[in-house]
Amino acid sequence: MTEREKPQSPKLFGTAGIRGSVRDKVTERLALDLARAMSTMFANEGQVIVGSDYRTTSAELRAALLGGLLGGGIDAFDAGFLPTPVLAFGVPAVGADAGIMVTASHNPPEDNGIKCYSHEGREYVPDEEEVLERLIAARQFTGVAWDRMGTSLQAPDVIDAYVDRLLDRIQPFQRRLKALIDCANGTTYNVTPLILSKMGCEVISLNAQPDGRFPGRPAEPNPANLAAMCHFVRSVKADVGIAHDGDGDRLAVVDEKGRYVNNDTLLAFFARLLLQENGPGRIVTTVDTSSRIDKVADSSGGTVERTRLGKTHVQLIEENRASVRLCCEPWKIIDPAWGFWGDAIYAACRVIQALDESKGTASALFRGIPEYPQERFFFRCPDELKDPVMGEVSHALTAERKVREVSTLDGVRVNFNDDSWILIRKSGTEGKIRVYCEGRSPKKLKELVRKSSSVVRKAIKTAERVNPKAA
Amino acid sequence: MTEREKPQSPKLFGTAGIRGSVRDKVTERLALDLARAMSTMFANEGQVIVGSDYRTTSAELRAALLGGLLGGGIDAFDAGFLPTPVLAFGVPAVGADAGIMVTASHNPPEDNGIKCYSHEGREYVPDEEEVLERLIAARQFTGVAWDRMGTSLQAPDVIDAYVDRLLDRIQPFQRRLKALIDCANGTTYNVTPLILSKMGCEVISLNAQPDGRFPGRPAEPNPANLAAMCHFVRSVKADVGIAHDGDGDRLAVVDEKGRYVNNDTLLAFFARLLLQENGPGRIVTTVDTSSRIDKVADSSGGTVERTRLGKTHVQLIEENRASVRLCCEPWKIIDPAWGFWGDAIYAACRVIQALDESKGTASALFRGIPEYPQERFFFRCPDELKDPVMGEVSHALTAERKVREVSTLDGVRVNFNDDSWILIRKSGTEGKIRVYCEGRSPKKLKELVRKSSSVVRKAIKTAERVNPKAA
Amino acid sequence: MTEREKPQSPKLFGTAGIRGSVRDKVTERLALDLARAMSTMFANEGQVIVGSDYRTTSAELRAALLGGLLGGGIDAFDAGFLPTPVLAFGVPAVGADAGIMVTASHNPPEDNGIKCYSHEGREYVPDEEEVLERLIAARQFTGVAWDRMGTSLQAPDVIDAYVDRLLDRIQPFQRRLKALIDCANGTTYNVTPLILSKMGCEVISLNAQPDGRFPGRPAEPNPANLAAMCHFVRSVKADVGIAHDGDGDRLAVVDEKGRYVNNDTLLAFFARLLLQENGPGRIVTTVDTSSRIDKVADSSGGTVERTRLGKTHVQLIEENRASVRLCCEPWKIIDPAWGFWGDAIYAACRVIQALDESKGTASALFRGIPEYPQERFFFRCPDELKDPVMGEVSHALTAERKVREVSTLDGVRVNFNDDSWILIRKSGTEGKIRVYCEGRSPKKLKELVRKSSSVVRKAIKTAERVNPKAA
Amino acid sequence: MTEREKPQSPKLFGTAGIRGSVRDKVTERLALDLARAMSTMFANEGQVIVGSDYRTTSAELRAALLGGLLGGGIDAFDAGFLPTPVLAFGVPAVGADAGIMVTASHNPPEDNGIKCYSHEGREYVPDEEEVLERLIAARQFTGVAWDRMGTSLQAPDVIDAYVDRLLDRIQPFQRRLKALIDCANGTTYNVTPLILSKMGCEVISLNAQPDGRFPGRPAEPNPANLAAMCHFVRSVKADVGIAHDGDGDRLAVVDEKGRYVNNDTLLAFFARLLLQENGPGRIVTTVDTSSRIDKVADSSGGTVERTRLGKTHVQLIEENRASVRLCCEPWKIIDPAWGFWGDAIYAACRVIQALDESKGTASALFRGIPEYPQERFFFRCPDELKDPVMGEVSHALTAERKVREVSTLDGVRVNFNDDSWILIRKSGTEGKIRVYCEGRSPKKLKELVRKSSSVVRKAIKTAERVNPKAA
Repeated sequence: MTEREKPQSPKLFGTAGIRGSVRDKVTERLALDLARAMSTMFANEGQVIVGSDYRTTSAELRAALLGGLLGGGIDAFDAGFLPTPVLAFGVPAVGADAGIMVTASHNPPEDNGIKCYSHEGREYVPDEEEVLERLIAARQFTGVAWDRMGTSLQAPDVIDAYVDRLLDRIQPFQRRLKALIDCANGTTYNVTPLILSKMGCEVISLNAQPDGRFPGRPAEPNPANLAAMCHFVRSVKADVGIAHDGDGDRLAVVDEKGRYVNNDTLLAFFARLLLQENGPGRIVTTVDTSSRIDKVADSSGGTVERTRLGKTHVQLIEENRASVRLCCEPWKIIDPAWGFWGDAIYAACRVIQALDESKGTASALFRGIPEYPQERFFFRCPDELKDPVMGEVSHALTAERKVREVSTLDGVRVNFNDDSWILIRKSGTEGKIRVYCEGRSPKKLKELVRKSSSVVRKAIKTAERVNPKAA
Repeated sequence: MTEREKPQSPKLFGTAGIRGSVRDKVTERLALDLARAMSTMFANEGQVIVGSDYRTTSAELRAALLGGLLGGGIDAFDAGFLPTPVLAFGVPAVGADAGIMVTASHNPPEDNGIKCYSHEGREYVPDEEEVLERLIAARQFTGVAWDRMGTSLQAPDVIDAYVDRLLDRIQPFQRRLKALIDCANGTTYNVTPLILSKMGCEVISLNAQPDGRFPGRPAEPNPANLAAMCHFVRSVKADVGIAHDGDGDRLAVVDEKGRYVNNDTLLAFFARLLLQENGPGRIVTTVDTSSRIDKVADSSGGTVERTRLGKTHVQLIEENRASVRLCCEPWKIIDPAWGFWGDAIYAACRVIQALDESKGTASALFRGIPEYPQERFFFRCPDELKDPVMGEVSHALTAERKVREVSTLDGVRVNFNDDSWILIRKSGTEGKIRVYCEGRSPKKLKELVRKSSSVVRKAIKTAERVNPKAA
Repeated sequence: MTEREKPQSPKLFGTAGIRGSVRDKVTERLALDLARAMSTMFANEGQVIVGSDYRTTSAELRAALLGGLLGGGIDAFDAGFLPTPVLAFGVPAVGADAGIMVTASHNPPEDNGIKCYSHEGREYVPDEEEVLERLIAARQFTGVAWDRMGTSLQAPDVIDAYVDRLLDRIQPFQRRLKALIDCANGTTYNVTPLILSKMGCEVISLNAQPDGRFPGRPAEPNPANLAAMCHFVRSVKADVGIAHDGDGDRLAVVDEKGRYVNNDTLLAFFARLLLQENGPGRIVTTVDTSSRIDKVADSSGGTVERTRLGKTHVQLIEENRASVRLCCEPWKIIDPAWGFWGDAIYAACRVIQALDESKGTASALFRGIPEYPQERFFFRCPDELKDPVMGEVSHALTAERKVREVSTLDGVRVNFNDDSWILIRKSGTEGKIRVYCEGRSPKKLKELVRKSSSVVRKAIKTAERVNPKAA
Repeated sequence: MTEREKPQSPKLFGTAGIRGSVRDKVTERLALDLARAMSTMFANEGQVIVGSDYRTTSAELRAALLGGLLGGGIDAFDAGFLPTPVLAFGVPAVGADAGIMVTASHNPPEDNGIKCYSHEGREYVPDEEEVLERLIAARQFTGVAWDRMGTSLQAPDVIDAYVDRLLDRIQPFQRRLKALIDCANGTTYNVTPLILSKMGCEVISLNAQPDGRFPGRPAEPNPANLAAMCHFVRSVKADVGIAHDGDGDRLAVVDEKGRYVNNDTLLAFFARLLLQENGPGRIVTTVDTSSRIDKVADSSGGTVERTRLGKTHVQLIEENRASVRLCCEPWKIIDPAWGFWGDAIYAACRVIQALDESKGTASALFRGIPEYPQERFFFRCPDELKDPVMGEVSHALTAERKVREVSTLDGVRVNFNDDSWILIRKSGTEGKIRVYCEGRSPKKLKELVRKSSSVVRKAIKTAERVNPKAA
């Protein structure tokens, strides 16, 4: 099989860093280029820390990144295998100028990806990513003289430092809670179970051996992939279940009855917790999340702001971040008082800490958050028709009655007077138009689903008529 | 709390190496002495490889051993954390003269222990252990001049070499079997699941994060400790369950119905497998194992020999080992054609290989092995009375009718004409007389239990009469 | 050869930590005890960093120390092989509570030793050392539960951090000076030449391969051991020669003519440099150093204080250290503005920095320091007579004419009106009375030698008469 | 400064692997390509060991090579920094399929290079190098699926294994010889001095700190660069001096009088030694070496074969190597009975072993080898004229009288009846025609120099007339 190199698209970074197949996109050649671009961005001086998840292709990408950094005059720490939040934590901890994490998070094992982090441990925002993209596209890398190459630095044990700091932050629990932790065969295997065990939990682990082929279950911690785990939570009589993705930036929670806690409910829980802890302030979330967050925030002195998917951390750049109490989207939690990175390990500890203090059960813990019924579905739509379709959809939706608010940040979201809402957006990676509905009642939801389906179907038909070739 | 050193008892090694509390017995001081004794035994030359399990006290004992070896002129490899069979494999693999493993196997986490291995990877036999004990008791350690100290050698990746060799030995499976593996929070976490996954299993792991406090379950893989695991095997619809102890020298198997496979049945299974594979030969087992092994061996051209508990490997010293096909005792399997060490990782692979080739279920795999009913119980008995009691018991048992054979290797075992048997022995560690019965039928078993109970009770009464003080 | 353990003397620490034969005194058993004592002193909590020089016996002592610390509940960093000043620097750099360095400095290769450092990187003072001695003598070590053992921490690259910080502190040189550096086969091999090369020197190294047998020359950098090196400085036309001992806490300087710079002259040079740099203050030195230091200090706004040999750092404990500008004794330099440890690497850089700035030659650099003629000699004297002899001597010396000052800190030193002086002290390690004289002129020196010899001879005769047995 | 990539010339490998500027030629991109080419050559399976010298650019090239190998499905050992002969030794020692060494040997520090080694530790021959060149030129790299990537293997301590094996091979010396060893700031720093010290030498080292900028002296061990070192051999009264280049494949020897031993004399010495040791056989050397080798070989039962420069190892491929006793060219020694690689560390030990056994001085050791006077010089000549000039030269030289033999392997060499010879060849890297003459007497040499100069001058003139543009 002969490897042919495709011309590199200028757009490399997507919703969550660079991500894609190691065959076509995330190659060691791209890793080398990215490292040279970053060296150029830093004027060939400074320190960068590099880590990866356990994917089978991570070690080679890490080696190529290190080669490119050293060759670009950057001193590089090889932090080895570790969770994404621990790498992010490590950037300020070792005093580096940036961090690079090789991971494709919950993608299938044949993919890989690269995320960059600022000296504060914040994921790069689009402005920063575009600098790198431009340099790579133009291949305008500055080099250094032979005697100014970077040196390989020995990193201190970042995992150990992370564990220590988290144990400093969260006191041992009062109760001996039994926690089942599913590590998705990922990098949390030697972090989350250890920390919870040290905090006093009786820990049982599932899929805790690191294996980049994810033999235990697919890496995304969604309800379908966690069905057997939910069952096991009950059969071992655990008080709570915790599940991660492959690199530890995602958190799912299962209650003592083996029920998967709704993602938006979990976000609302954190909104309440952090507003109570740190006082009134801003909750930043994405356009696809529930109005239950707004509801809860409202009653705790918070205001909710929404961003495009994957971009809540943009509100954490220095000039934006005053009084931000939480950045969150489904499965991902950033508590800026702890750190500027999504951290599902920390978040897991906070959930169990709250459970401990509540003296009740996990199901009781989330009982106070309103549960509005939701539905998500999609329509197939060729890429060329997406834009005309979205034009039609936008037109139709905003003309609906009882619309309180319209947002076009990422597709079109209309919030109705009763806090029900519809979000329609084109998929960034597949030939699909995605629809999200949330109603205040099952009946209302049914109505929204019917209405939005009708809007999308009609828009597709119209678009096909106007662009007969694309269809 | 002030640490006071007790005078060291000359008897250090027991059924399975040195084992005991890190507070009183297995101290870093003892580790230092053992290392100096071994250096002395090797005339202050040669190489030793040292490894440990993940117990919280293992790292310090390993450091003390390394210090003692280097100071005694021995070049020492620090192999870090790894399963006991992998350390044993490593001794010949790196060409060392001996291996030392820091582990207390399935003991509770507050204990630790030390096992020594010959240059062939065979556990030390009592003769070798006594040399060390004598040197330690006499503190007769030879030293070396300042310029003849040992050097710290960097060990190659022994785990990697072990995995490679096992993958060379066992071909990928034909079927995609689902295997649930419970690693007991021990050193097998990055070996057994990985190997089985590479051989083609769909692996789900339990308790695979290494943690010396054994948070998931007690380390001994007995039916009580594996109850929840057995349940989970069924709920994830696994084809087979595999459980280890903390250091990977013990194997328990669970069938697809979630039933724990009887230990003696497993031994009989291996006896048949290896006799078929390597031709007629000797099966070495301990006095407490079932006559189903004899039955199975008999029909496969094997002869069974019995040894004291924990000492089957004595038949593997060079002058004894001709035509030995298997050394085994409950949970422990040594296949000399693979290596001279107990190896539950290899054994797990063999079980699943056989399952694969059988094209049937795990329950069917063991169906051909006869299941004779067994019972184990004990009577309390003061230490001072144990010997007179055993004298009486021996007298009474051998006088029974239909006795075919009597063995006094370790207590008294009488085999009856119908292959039923009774074993009565004094406990080595507690104030107890232990009784083991196996009958060809439930009715016969009941009779044996009654008979043996009566013999022991009578013997204890007699002994108390003769030694009124002890009682 | 059978090793017999001697009863341990309660007095372990001497002039420079614990030091002695690895056979009798500095054994791995002592290392274990010291580690347990330190653990006890720290109430079985905290972090300690451990390093060593390249002596053949250092690795085993380091291993034993690590074992003892971990077993005592202390988290331990193994910093490997590095210079003593770099280890001391590392204690505050990694935030440890203490540091332990395995080294016998310039002793012969068959010896070894142990030095302890505070969390600030200051060598332990006698008060601290006595705590350890008492605990070791009484064997009163507190232990920890099995689950509170220390963990092995991965140290960051301390050498790299040290080099970086020193390069931050001292700017690149203006001139391309040629420097010959003799590393004594010790731990400075990868530090001093590298730093000076990075600062802009043309570096030629001698004895830069680390080798604990010191094949190149004896480790003490005295004029006799450096004779060939002095010659080579001239033959390669170097601008300056630098020589260390085995662990980098000693500095000797050779000028461009191949002449060994007098130790006391070097101390006076540093006194002047640091007083000029940091303003008037205190210069702490030992009783055996030249009055040229006083002379130079006086003219730069400094006052001189003298301590016992090896104990200048006692003035660096927190309550003593206000306005101390320099602690020094022959070969050893502590600049508290840089760090609280003796640092011959830093000192070498300062000498060459000064040479660079002077725009002249090395011989010119030291020309301004007065050179008073000195002589050192000794008289044999049995241990039992030392005290009466010293009594007589003290009596006689203080009765001399023109005495300006008498000090009895360490033997008897009398300073005369013209700044000439005599120091007479008993040797701490040999059967000798040592005499040091310095005169303002060769003629005056001759007179002092005659006088002091006569005083000692007379005192010995008197003592022998009174104590006939001892003689 | 913007880095622009030049189109890659298909000819990458030269006299000694790939070598050139890290800016234009030996980039991390080339390293990546070479690694992918090698992976392709091995059908994306197998193991490769990678090492480097201490050049400032070596770590990044090593990282890029590792990334490319892993991504190409090859398991890679990172052997870190080590001498070239130790890397070559390591290939069979760890059982790898190939070795890659990053080094530019004695080139200036701004260059770097790459050499490849077969599974036997033999440098790649042109046939093997061309396979790699073709694959790189065509960019025809085969890839592997995501789950077949290579794994990073932990290499055992290859240096340690090498030292052990060499110490097994050469017995401790009888005399305590003083040896001065100049390591050229290269990778031999922790090998040659250590080995000689263990064999019993009193070792003094020069430039033994590793530093890729070669601060001590230029890396080539020619007489000019060793002038000061020769002087120092005398001043420290050493019995012998040894000098290496930066990566330990070159050896220069200095006698006790501080005289540089002629390179060809050293080769003749080895020819005699190995013919005596292993019996009559073949001596392979290059066209530019002295007839003193033939003379010595002849009297020891050897026959001499000559190859192009840098290619003596071609006679070591399996089908060629029967009865080869030595492959050698100036500074480089391959003893096939020891290993198939050029090994200046081993060679140094053999010289000193012979010195030890001789019981005489170093100057006496080489006294038996005839010293024929030699001269080397060159004429400037544009690249385009080189071929016509060489045509003329060849024509003229072969027409000379008393020619016994003509070789056109690499330029033209004529051997005269009295064993005097002239070699004229075009430089591969500069605009020069090089001339080598050796006569049996100074008078004869003078005649040869005159004659060859005249031939070359005439040829250049003729060529210029015929090709007026080129001149």
